[in-house]
Amino acid sequence: VPHPPVDSVTVAELRQICGADFVLTDRDGMQPFAHDFTEDLLYFPEVVVRPRTTAEVQAIMRLAYEREIPVTPRGGGTGLSGGALPVRGGILLSVDRMTSIISIDTENMMGVVEPGVITQVYQEAVEAQGLFYPPDPASRGSCTLGGNVAECAGGPRAAKYGVTRDWIYALDVVMPDGRLIRTGSQCLKDVTGYNLTQLFVGSEGTLGVVTQITTRLMTLPPFRQTLLVAFPTMESALAVVVEIFRRGYQPSACEFMERDAIAVAVERKGQDVPHADAEAQLLIEVDGFDADLVETQLFTIGELAMEHGAIEVTVAQEPGKQKQLWDIRRAVGEAVKSISIYKEEDAVVPRKHIVSLMRGVAAITREHGIHAICYGHAGDGNIHINILKKEMTDEEWNDRLPGAINRIFELTCSLGGRISGEHGIGFTQRPYLPIALSGDELAVMKQIKQALDPKGLLNPDKIFLS
Amino acid sequence: VPHPPVDSVTVAELRQICGADFVLTDRDGMQPFAHDFTEDLLYFPEVVVRPRTTAEVQAIMRLAYEREIPVTPRGGGTGLSGGALPVRGGILLSVDRMTSIISIDTENMMGVVEPGVITQVYQEAVEAQGLFYPPDPASRGSCTLGGNVAECAGGPRAAKYGVTRDWIYALDVVMPDGRLIRTGSQCLKDVTGYNLTQLFVGSEGTLGVVTQITTRLMTLPPFRQTLLVAFPTMESALAVVVEIFRRGYQPSACEFMERDAIAVAVERKGQDVPHADAEAQLLIEVDGFDADLVETQLFTIGELAMEHGAIEVTVAQEPGKQKQLWDIRRAVGEAVKSISIYKEEDAVVPRKHIVSLMRGVAAITREHGIHAICYGHAGDGNIHINILKKEMTDEEWNDRLPGAINRIFELTCSLGGRISGEHGIGFTQRPYLPIALSGDELAVMKQIKQALDPKGLLNPDKIFLS
Repeated sequence: VPHPPVDSVTVAELRQICGADFVLTDRDGMQPFAHDFTEDLLYFPEVVVRPRTTAEVQAIMRLAYEREIPVTPRGGGTGLSGGALPVRGGILLSVDRMTSIISIDTENMMGVVEPGVITQVYQEAVEAQGLFYPPDPASRGSCTLGGNVAECAGGPRAAKYGVTRDWIYALDVVMPDGRLIRTGSQCLKDVTGYNLTQLFVGSEGTLGVVTQITTRLMTLPPFRQTLLVAFPTMESALAVVVEIFRRGYQPSACEFMERDAIAVAVERKGQDVPHADAEAQLLIEVDGFDADLVETQLFTIGELAMEHGAIEVTVAQEPGKQKQLWDIRRAVGEAVKSISIYKEEDAVVPRKHIVSLMRGVAAITREHGIHAICYGHAGDGNIHINILKKEMTDEEWNDRLPGAINRIFELTCSLGGRISGEHGIGFTQRPYLPIALSGDELAVMKQIKQALDPKGLLNPDKIFLS
Repeated sequence: VPHPPVDSVTVAELRQICGADFVLTDRDGMQPFAHDFTEDLLYFPEVVVRPRTTAEVQAIMRLAYEREIPVTPRGGGTGLSGGALPVRGGILLSVDRMTSIISIDTENMMGVVEPGVITQVYQEAVEAQGLFYPPDPASRGSCTLGGNVAECAGGPRAAKYGVTRDWIYALDVVMPDGRLIRTGSQCLKDVTGYNLTQLFVGSEGTLGVVTQITTRLMTLPPFRQTLLVAFPTMESALAVVVEIFRRGYQPSACEFMERDAIAVAVERKGQDVPHADAEAQLLIEVDGFDADLVETQLFTIGELAMEHGAIEVTVAQEPGKQKQLWDIRRAVGEAVKSISIYKEEDAVVPRKHIVSLMRGVAAITREHGIHAICYGHAGDGNIHINILKKEMTDEEWNDRLPGAINRIFELTCSLGGRISGEHGIGFTQRPYLPIALSGDELAVMKQIKQALDPKGLLNPDKIFLS
């Protein structure tokens, strides 16, 4: 059923709510809000609203609810599964003006922010007070905490510190009908009614619009060291990953790159790494509150790697050297995507099954005549699989891709894995969700969606195929 | 509306499902299932069923759904808010026969258990493999993991390791209509659909019956040391607590006892502690993977305490000595409750506000002519307030108690706190929930309950006053 169009009366009312400057209807003005970082997808909303306050968000939602107009919330627009795309038109609600850091409490170690705060801006603000907010998605320079909450963003440090969910303690949420609720509290323990906070985290903006976020903080670990280790085989690299955690070491990052990933990053950055032709490399970071212990851990992990047949261990103790290694790792994503049209998958498996996943992906892509480059967060089993179109024709690409992705996700799930570790299902991954979830599991999720958004207006056509 | 009685046909069908030996209808047999650890409350079910398998639980739920008979799930029966009381009669579903530890995976560091496994049994099983499951509610020798999941149990170690929620990664859940779903996965990151796992954790058995639990595990930290520190004032003790965390130390426990709590425990155990007459004592435990670091941290925390005016620091490095100190701490709960009829509250506030809460509780109880003894988990702001009837008449008790509790919770919430940190709302705390939650917040929670349990049959009359 198509929704009623956003007419001039509605636009006038939205201008009344947000101020005329912050309601856009011209195509040029709306263009930046019509796409995110997901492939080359482009969907124009009928109107973009940029509210400044929770009260404005409530007024927008009440209006949309009354008129039955879809609303798509948007953070930094860096999502990789199309979660912020206004695929049905309607209202695009951008939180890009809700950028206040409301408080940083050094005693209770909690911070309160608006959803439009850039993740890195928040991290730097808390670090200036000796505190630490660990979740660090690759896009942290441009993504927002609101978007991180919507997608339950991860990043390299999740290996030690967990994902966004683990750091969110309270939310202000505007419900689809405009009611404002607060979930959770600034308490470290809280069983006062249902745990709605962790339901909203990762719900991809389909259940409510988050307008305020309370995160836990910790004391900033002052010491950090980094290793790059080259391995002759994926097996040897990933055996070391399993062994590191089994022995109780907790590296703050444990990143994996296969040969092709290193090659494109090296080329892009014009900066070499030792043994760039090795089959696999691990970038391992250790942090902590004791310099000696950090050094001991790093040294022991290095020895462990050599015992498992590593080719060479490169230690980066100085921040400058560390940055060089991380620059290579961070360059992989963009470098891979610049090669050609691509499709990125975000598979996650139990840590010990990464080798089986990687070998399986290699076999499946070979069989389907496609090429994929893999890299990602080995510490928590989360591998980004970038399938590249390269010189394939459009017909070949459209023909081969869906079957290959289905096979990859069937393999992922057969290994106890899931089809998204940190990017979400959003718009593009919906066809594959039934590979991971049973009909009853999908039905229970839809019952919750139906209960909280009975008119189905909030971020429609996301997560579930209707 | 009263439900249809559990008739002989239904009992016969339940016997068919579970086996005749595991369906109880006689008063003596049902007696152990008619109460939990909440005050002296006693509610008899109409029938007790003790299923062995998930399929049996599904069959019971399908039958109950069809006949519209209430079902109350029960773990170890150690709950402190009446969550397992069959207050409407109907079927009491005990998981006490579902006691298999299905797997302990040392490589992926996850364990899978049935809900009737005793928490301590699981902890010892994983420790035998060098692994660690940290959540340690006081009742861990008799509570079950199913009950821990239902209430999101905490315990002393939550200060460092978080609560049950933080360790649960997947659940098998039988829905009120008998459908079986699996939530989550054995992956460390997972955004494949809504995060139902953390919604079910802490939902007090009102949304589904958990029949299988996957917990994360970590490597067992081999070193542990304990301090008991006496302070002349609560203020000085709690200032040290704030400072310990602010400096980045992460004690694995940071327990607070006021003078009266120590006194009753010392009397009960017939074992003295140094400076038992001090206004406050902190029991601090540090654990870790490096003996020197554990010792250094303990030493530094001890110095910090002395700088803040501590009377004396008692170090327990040997397990025997540590056990003595912990025995005193663990004796407090039962010792306090043995004094007289009591009502225990489970307030939690941001760590820095514990002093204000304690001083406020003292003023409120004085004003209402009642006596309370406080102790608990200072590391995470969770204080157990035991109000004692002592020589008050029943009339005085009934007259003074509700007003005092209301005042205590109003104070708690005004400090940013919540009315339950780890015991849940269950049956007894329902009248106070509106102090913590707004009408809209309650309404959203009820919308979820209604969506997942449309007939309202699962653990009715819990969390919400109808």
